[in-house]
Formats: sequence, C-alpha cells, structure tokens
Amino acid sequence: MPLVRISVDGGWSRERLGKLSDAIHRALVDAAKAPAEGKFQIVTEHAAGGIVHPPAFQGIPKTDGIVIVQITMNAGRAPEVKRGLYAALAANCLEAAGVEPDDLVVSLVEVPKENWSWGRGVMTYAPE
Amino acid sequence: MPLVRISVDGGWSRERLGKLSDAIHRALVDAAKAPAEGKFQIVTEHAAGGIVHPPAFQGIPKTDGIVIVQITMNAGRAPEVKRGLYAALAANCLEAAGVEPDDLVVSLVEVPKENWSWGRGVMTYAPE
Amino acid sequence: MPLVRISVDGGWSRERLGKLSDAIHRALVDAAKAPAEGKFQIVTEHAAGGIVHPPAFQGIPKTDGIVIVQITMNAGRAPEVKRGLYAALAANCLEAAGVEPDDLVVSLVEVPKENWSWGRGVMTYAPE
Repeated sequence: MPLVRISVDGGWSRERLGKLSDAIHRALVDAAKAPAEGKFQIVTEHAAGGIVHPPAFQGIPKTDGIVIVQITMNAGRAPEVKRGLYAALAANCLEAAGVEPDDLVVSLVEVPKENWSWGRGVMTYAPE
Repeated sequence: MPLVRISVDGGWSRERLGKLSDAIHRALVDAAKAPAEGKFQIVTEHAAGGIVHPPAFQGIPKTDGIVIVQITMNAGRAPEVKRGLYAALAANCLEAAGVEPDDLVVSLVEVPKENWSWGRGVMTYAPE
Repeated sequence: MPLVRISVDGGWSRERLGKLSDAIHRALVDAAKAPAEGKFQIVTEHAAGGIVHPPAFQGIPKTDGIVIVQITMNAGRAPEVKRGLYAALAANCLEAAGVEPDDLVVSLVEVPKENWSWGRGVMTYAPE
C-alpha cells in the first residue's frame, strides 16, 4: 500500500528502470512488510536540470546518478524498521540497478490508514 | 485549498483530461467542503512505464487506465467525510471521464492550516 | 534537508529556472535555517494544461506564471518561522526571477527526522 515516487535524471534504459522499480518494491516488502501485490510507483525521468542537487551533503557525494525516492505509506513503523528499510533500499538498488548508495535519497511521508482508497471509491482499510 | 496531483498514462485527450480535472474538483467541493474557487491541480501524463501498478490489489483489478490522485489538504476531516470523498471521486470520475472505479487510487496527505501560502508571501489561514 | 518540488508551466529559460531554484533555496536557508549545502529540488516544467489554477483565490489573482512549491521538511518550525519563510520565498522569487508574489503558492509537508535517508542506506539524523 505505499505509493512511491521515484525521480531520476534522463538517459536510463527501460530495462534498468525496471530493475530499479523492482529493487525498491522488494525492499519495502522485505524490510517494511508492505504487501507484495501492492507495487504502485510513479517513475519520472526528469529533463536536464530537473533534479537539483549539491555536490555533497553531510559528507556524502551526490552525482547525476542520484535517485530520489519519496514513499507515502501508513504511519506506525518503528525507527528500527525504517532503518532496515533504508539499508535494504540501498543494498537492493546497488545490486539490481548499480545505484551508488551515496546517490540514494529516501523521504518517507506517513499517513493514517483511513487516507487511502485503492479503488471502487471505498476507504480500503476501514470500508464501512 | 487542497493541492491535487493527478497522474495518468499518456494518450488522454485534452478534453477528457479537463473532464477528469473538473470531476475531481467537484468531488472535493461537494463531499469535503473544499472551496469552489480553490481548484489547484498538477496533472501529469506519464511516459510509457511511468506508472507502475500490479494487475490487481486487494482483489480489485488495475489497468493502464489507472488514475492516481494524491491530495494535500488541511487536516481535520472526519473518517465519514473521507469516505464520502472517495465515493464522490469514484462516481464523478466514472460519469465525467469514464474512469473505472476499480482504477481510481486516492491518497490523502493532511497538513495543518499554517502550512499554506496561497500568494503574496502570506500565511493564508493565519496571516498576522 | 528539505526536499522541494517546484512546478511551473513550460517556456521558462534555463537561466530563469536556475534563478528561481536559487531564490527558493536561499529563502529556506535564511528564513528556516535549512542547511546551505542541502539544496535538493525537483523542478518540473509542465505541459500545457498541466497546472490547473483558478483566475483568483481568496482575492489574489493567479496567472499562467504560477509557481507551486511543495516542501517536505522536518517538523518543528514555529508559525513565525513559517511566516518568515513565506515572506522570504515571495521576496526572493520576485527579485531573482520576476515571479509575481500573487503567483507563488507554497505547501509545506512536515515529517519527523527519522523519515530521511540522505545516502548510504543510513537514517541520516539518527544513524545507529
């Protein structure tokens, strides 16, 4: 049930984007118990200049290979779970799509369960 | 005063996108008392592969006609109001733009009123 | 550490977009104590019809020169700080990029510090 926005610079192949997409979803399932069937992502390749980033932040270099992942998900995961999610995202994106862990930025936005409708005009997690 | 991000696959006509936009705004006004004059939306037609979705989620099929609506709005609406909003969104999008209710995904992100400036560099809902 | 999404209509020059980007970041640093080195932005020029806005909202006119800025940032800033941020954003965007203050819309989304990983798969603000 997370909704994931993935932003990269232009020039990625469809194949590599697919691997990135899978890698991110797998991390959510394995580390944060997101439902395996709930792979909803909005993947955007940005025009030149579309992603603005510094050369480094907090001592970690950033390149034009940067990947920004913003995840809207249900509130309630413990800090240890979030820590495990960040680690899994970095490991998976490196292994599957060659994303440098330095270049992976993750932002979580948490919402209550009543804030989703996954179809049919129904509040999915509290339908009646 | 909501800010609405609407994501669809490519290939929609301008006319149908306009109807979708109107249908979504009308649901917010009618079911969630959003101000009628406050129609602010960011509508994006995504490149092929830009919206990643499963064939079904929680038993509800999803097609490439999927419409993802993420609404940033003021906190404080009761669950019944949100339920009514989901229902109105689904009914309106079907009627006006032929969107299958199965294909309509809605995500709400709630913020306090002080988190908006609707112009002139002023905190709109608590200006002084 | 904020993540900033900036949306404009098409037709801006690269130079003017760069000035807008700088102006917005400077306001965050000066008025909201965001780290100077943490300039992370996703800047999107939308296709015609991509930004839907009314002719006016709450008595403030809106034109196709509209700039929508959605900032995800750490929670905890006082209302006075947010007020100062809105004012600084409007002043800077006018001065540097000629954006009418009427046309500047700002939306803040606040998250806890544990909701960020700025690289290396680590929870940046609470690493262990």
